[in-house]
Amino acid sequence: MRLAFTKTQATGNDFVVIADPDGAIDLAPEHIRQLSDRHFGVGGDGVIRAVRSKHLELGRDLLEIDPSAEWFMDYTNADGSVAEMCGNGVRAYAHFLLERGFTDFDADGMLAIGTRAGIKLVTRHELGYEVDLGRWRLAGGEPLVHADGIEVARPGLGLDLGNPHVVVALASAEELEDLELFSQPALDPVPPAGANVEFVVPLDPMVESGVGNVRMRVYERGVGETLSCGTGVAATALAVRHWAGVGAPNVWRVEVPGGVLGVRMLHGEDGEHVLLSGPASLVFDGEFDFTTG
Amino acid sequence: MRLAFTKTQATGNDFVVIADPDGAIDLAPEHIRQLSDRHFGVGGDGVIRAVRSKHLELGRDLLEIDPSAEWFMDYTNADGSVAEMCGNGVRAYAHFLLERGFTDFDADGMLAIGTRAGIKLVTRHELGYEVDLGRWRLAGGEPLVHADGIEVARPGLGLDLGNPHVVVALASAEELEDLELFSQPALDPVPPAGANVEFVVPLDPMVESGVGNVRMRVYERGVGETLSCGTGVAATALAVRHWAGVGAPNVWRVEVPGGVLGVRMLHGEDGEHVLLSGPASLVFDGEFDFTTG
Repeated sequence: MRLAFTKTQATGNDFVVIADPDGAIDLAPEHIRQLSDRHFGVGGDGVIRAVRSKHLELGRDLLEIDPSAEWFMDYTNADGSVAEMCGNGVRAYAHFLLERGFTDFDADGMLAIGTRAGIKLVTRHELGYEVDLGRWRLAGGEPLVHADGIEVARPGLGLDLGNPHVVVALASAEELEDLELFSQPALDPVPPAGANVEFVVPLDPMVESGVGNVRMRVYERGVGETLSCGTGVAATALAVRHWAGVGAPNVWRVEVPGGVLGVRMLHGEDGEHVLLSGPASLVFDGEFDFTTG
Repeated sequence: MRLAFTKTQATGNDFVVIADPDGAIDLAPEHIRQLSDRHFGVGGDGVIRAVRSKHLELGRDLLEIDPSAEWFMDYTNADGSVAEMCGNGVRAYAHFLLERGFTDFDADGMLAIGTRAGIKLVTRHELGYEVDLGRWRLAGGEPLVHADGIEVARPGLGLDLGNPHVVVALASAEELEDLELFSQPALDPVPPAGANVEFVVPLDPMVESGVGNVRMRVYERGVGETLSCGTGVAATALAVRHWAGVGAPNVWRVEVPGGVLGVRMLHGEDGEHVLLSGPASLVFDGEFDFTTG
């Protein structure tokens, strides 16, 4: 089987996108693992199958809610497991669909994308694209966090953005740099489903012209340190705003090893939403042959 | 600039190969770094430009020694620096040239490849291809080696295969597995140019039907742990044979994280040569656009 693909990236989070408008391609977990392998395959954090929503049962359900959600993001992690959503992946996917002429923004400048976590709305943004990640909540308490390279355990803040996060403040940019994230940071108590752990420091000035500025590194559960994690970036801004208290900004700029992302908090009808913005690009096109690969 | 490439690999050591038969492509170090980046580029341990020897001054010198060395391996490390040779890279390069019809073995089954370390001879082999790495020597003494995950420092054996190696024997497969190679192992005394460090354990049985069996992991200086290192594999077999003493085999099978390689020691006119054998494959073809990448 010879498969055409496009490699995409969004702040260093990278994806192999397979165009399958008619829902004709069936990728087994072993195919996903082979494609995602950085030495023996194409390499990526995950694989996105670009398929019209009408070809999937879940997609047809979403079309009843919003008929404009023509395209579904069939996202799979590099290990072959199915993922509900990926904040950076949605930007990369939207960029692919737009650049290749599969779709366009509607008259209001919105693009609705179907995902396993429901419909996500994407708009243009100064940094590239912005996606509404939806509702969030404080959850998971304040477990102590210990990681290699920091001397004492620190209390973190638990947040739920569809997936669990624990955010920890460090004292300085030097401490953030010295952090060794080769293994999973220890959490006490251990959350039932684990958590992604974000380490954050304020930049100087932390708030300028009403925009908060922080830098973070992230350890994704089951993966390791990554260049960027969309929901982790949002969780980080939410935690720092929480600590800063009344009057803290609702717009943040978050530096990650893979680039710069924006976070906004906006009130919707159902409560506060968190929105993530950042760049995305198409890196290269290729053809992979599963028989020889 | 839109560039066609083929991604190749040899026991997990991976390379972006650019076909440039007429010597028309000039890749700057920044292009190499962009191509080699695993998240923002194609990804690889290095870039190989496939160019006819006659288009390079060094290549023309090699053609005077052996007119059959039609093709030159213009190898560059992922960081943009020039490398003299790469034992796994030569197999991947030979496979590319043969599969794409650029060349063929001569009547004696030999393929001569020009490199910055001279002409390397490649032959077919049960494991894929075998390349003569040339002469080697004991050098660098027996520095003490300490790495994370092993409790006490161990004496290593220094070898020179064109590049410096220190090989260390560990007690068991478990100890090899527990080894943490996130940072450079400490050497005492420190070699002037550093060294690649190989950690090796015997397999059971260590010698069967005249073939030695070992497993190793490698930390490449300036790079980190890799899935395979061609000269490191050869150095490992040479060190274990040295320790085993009189009667030890001259044929070895070396397991690395990226696969299995073979090592043979053969007497040539100028002394003993070490030969490395193993698989190579073409992984995928693609086109990379430097303006958008």
